Amino acid sequence: MTSPSATQSHFRAIDLIRKKRDGDALSSDEVAYLVEGCTSGDIPDYQMAAWLMAVVLRGMTREETAALTQSMLHSGEVLDLGFLPATKVDKHSTGGVGDKTSLVLAPLVAAGGLYVPMISGRGLGHTGGTLDKLESIPGFRVDLSVSEFHRVLKACGTSMIGQTEKIAPADRKLYALRDVTATVESPYLICASIMSKKLAEGTDALVLDVKTGSGAFMKKEEDAVFLAELMVETGERMGKQMAALITDMNQPLGRMVGNALEVRECIEVLHGGGPADLRDLCLELAAWMFFLGGASKTVAQGKTLAARIIASEQAFDRLRQMVELQGGDIDAIDDPSRLPVTGHTVEVPSSRAGYVESIVCEHVGTACVILGGGRERKEDSIDPAVGIAVHKKIGDAVSVGESLCTIHCHSDAQASRAKTLLEDSYHIAAAPPAHKPTLLHRVIYKGEY
Amino acid sequence: MTSPSATQSHFRAIDLIRKKRDGDALSSDEVAYLVEGCTSGDIPDYQMAAWLMAVVLRGMTREETAALTQSMLHSGEVLDLGFLPATKVDKHSTGGVGDKTSLVLAPLVAAGGLYVPMISGRGLGHTGGTLDKLESIPGFRVDLSVSEFHRVLKACGTSMIGQTEKIAPADRKLYALRDVTATVESPYLICASIMSKKLAEGTDALVLDVKTGSGAFMKKEEDAVFLAELMVETGERMGKQMAALITDMNQPLGRMVGNALEVRECIEVLHGGGPADLRDLCLELAAWMFFLGGASKTVAQGKTLAARIIASEQAFDRLRQMVELQGGDIDAIDDPSRLPVTGHTVEVPSSRAGYVESIVCEHVGTACVILGGGRERKEDSIDPAVGIAVHKKIGDAVSVGESLCTIHCHSDAQASRAKTLLEDSYHIAAAPPAHKPTLLHRVIYKGEY
Repeated sequence: MTSPSATQSHFRAIDLIRKKRDGDALSSDEVAYLVEGCTSGDIPDYQMAAWLMAVVLRGMTREETAALTQSMLHSGEVLDLGFLPATKVDKHSTGGVGDKTSLVLAPLVAAGGLYVPMISGRGLGHTGGTLDKLESIPGFRVDLSVSEFHRVLKACGTSMIGQTEKIAPADRKLYALRDVTATVESPYLICASIMSKKLAEGTDALVLDVKTGSGAFMKKEEDAVFLAELMVETGERMGKQMAALITDMNQPLGRMVGNALEVRECIEVLHGGGPADLRDLCLELAAWMFFLGGASKTVAQGKTLAARIIASEQAFDRLRQMVELQGGDIDAIDDPSRLPVTGHTVEVPSSRAGYVESIVCEHVGTACVILGGGRERKEDSIDPAVGIAVHKKIGDAVSVGESLCTIHCHSDAQASRAKTLLEDSYHIAAAPPAHKPTLLHRVIYKGEY
Repeated sequence: MTSPSATQSHFRAIDLIRKKRDGDALSSDEVAYLVEGCTSGDIPDYQMAAWLMAVVLRGMTREETAALTQSMLHSGEVLDLGFLPATKVDKHSTGGVGDKTSLVLAPLVAAGGLYVPMISGRGLGHTGGTLDKLESIPGFRVDLSVSEFHRVLKACGTSMIGQTEKIAPADRKLYALRDVTATVESPYLICASIMSKKLAEGTDALVLDVKTGSGAFMKKEEDAVFLAELMVETGERMGKQMAALITDMNQPLGRMVGNALEVRECIEVLHGGGPADLRDLCLELAAWMFFLGGASKTVAQGKTLAARIIASEQAFDRLRQMVELQGGDIDAIDDPSRLPVTGHTVEVPSSRAGYVESIVCEHVGTACVILGGGRERKEDSIDPAVGIAVHKKIGDAVSVGESLCTIHCHSDAQASRAKTLLEDSYHIAAAPPAHKPTLLHRVIYKGEY
């Protein structure tokens, strides 16, 4: 019989669940009550689970999403990087196969005079994680303390670390619950989860790389756009400079999938080489980071700046410096052949001639997981050396017996399941495909650029 | 990555939650897996809560509802009344204020030659419960063992008891969870909860009295009809003879609200008296029980039969017999003034002249709870003597100062909150209301009657 009032202690979880169930919006205080109660354990998991399912099916208003993000953000430590003398900027990607831009962007944008405090995650499922890639560099430490993180940032303009226990504990709690209650797939909950962690870094500007296609979580472009707009608006409500790029994930980004292989490809890009699609996306994202961070007047100027920094080897030098400061072996950066490699490779030949019509991109990621390059469960360990070098991409001509990709593995037997999966993921047609995927689908930004 | 198969052990709760979340129907095996896992505790409450919320918002097919009912029914003991030499028939009401027909129907229909094995509930919230009413008869035992229940049934054709721990344990578990996760209000879940308990009685036919109006759980007639159709179909799928009457609950049924007061009113009906609305509804429901149980060819004939049995005092004799067999004081049946009474009454006078336009029926029930005649929490105890005698019903003319109802209580002080609530629940208009509520709104039955 008690009705909710403005005082949080008067709220009852059941009334808030009912409110969301009936499609009404919760106030900021009500959302905060749930997030705090979930974090402290005062509200039992079964009530949170019912509320999460109601959110998945009823949605949230923009105000509610912002309130949820705020509450989750403030459930833990928020880094104060005010001591740094320039703008802090970061990028977040929703994840994909061969998605390795962070390793290029962090040193590149730092070399352009901005600070890039980057807190990243590990791979789970078919997508890779930045931390796993970094750890393929012998000695590289991602578990820095906050003071070490500050020192590295100050010294070289960027530092790349893992999420600490102290950042957004509400997100860890909620995510664990979402994972077992089929409530992961909600743009509102995804937005709050991503943004609460990213804003805890203390960044001023954030560029979002929202992937869409067969290798992305968001298979449909409209879903990617919806999530991107939600995240941009949520960040703006919190006073951040925000932009989102909707980019293609119908095939692996670049040519390499696998941790050490991807680091090697990033080093190629930092030396001015690498596959065109990866290089273009890195330049585009860096340009937006420069633009939002105030280092360039337009995105086009930002792109020119990024290209110049790469050409001058300053970006590569920054990576080298960061690796050294975080305990990594710089010999492996100077000579990438010193990165972990397998002693064996297996080719995946095409069984027919024609053109690559499409690739089931998610399966390429799964093939890498099967080889041991990713994890199916959180506790799985990673083999940094294994992976896949993709030779044929959408639109490429292929003859019978020609290699579609090369599996980096330890034996033929180890490669067999991955090989079958890769063979099946290629669709070869007689004629070239009508449309090759465009890398950049769309930009979400509130003004001129 | 494991997909559900026909073998239950291959199911994963998360896949089934996701399926319902996405609006798909679960198979019978999938529903059974969830119900069994919930009952055994193998599936945690947070997963069941997420699934329950998905059911509330996505609904269920008729097949799923039947499968849920079946699984809940078979989670515990199902009584086998095959040893009884005639058809078993029962009635279930969704509950209301002054809703006391069970006490009339059980002996009446038993006197007509059918068996009425009645397992009832206690009152909760503003509605009363049959068990509480029965317990106002001194000595009456509702906690019979199954063998005692069989013996009473055999001896006098009816027995009225409470739900045992062994009947539908899945319902008890699920209901407790629904109660704290705002997932009570789903017709599918309500249907499965009611029907699993009622079918565990071993009845062959079931008449549903689905209430609608300001004193019912279903305030809107369309919701009552939807639930009624769902329950009728679910029962029919299980081979039961089913019918549902949609009846009015915009004002208390009969004149008495309160446990001993209601027993007294039932005895009046069994002697051929009592208020017209209560008597009519009892005859109508008894007629349907006779018709579905094969004791009459039509409902009209069933009604004639019911009236004749009452007139012959056979129905009253059956009540007397049952009360005696279940340990109750038959002197209190023979002379209802021996039932518990309060030493004090308080009148609720009308403050204006005119006609009763409407009554907030739920508040009349709540007034009785406030007096101690019902319970707000499960653990509350009941005062059998208190209650309300309703003198003015919708359409009745009333003058200033005339009593709308009489409060049976122990002191003026005790009555004060109930008095205010009752005063406020009456709306007196200058002119008679355009429409007086009709008791029987609608019949849901598949054939001719």
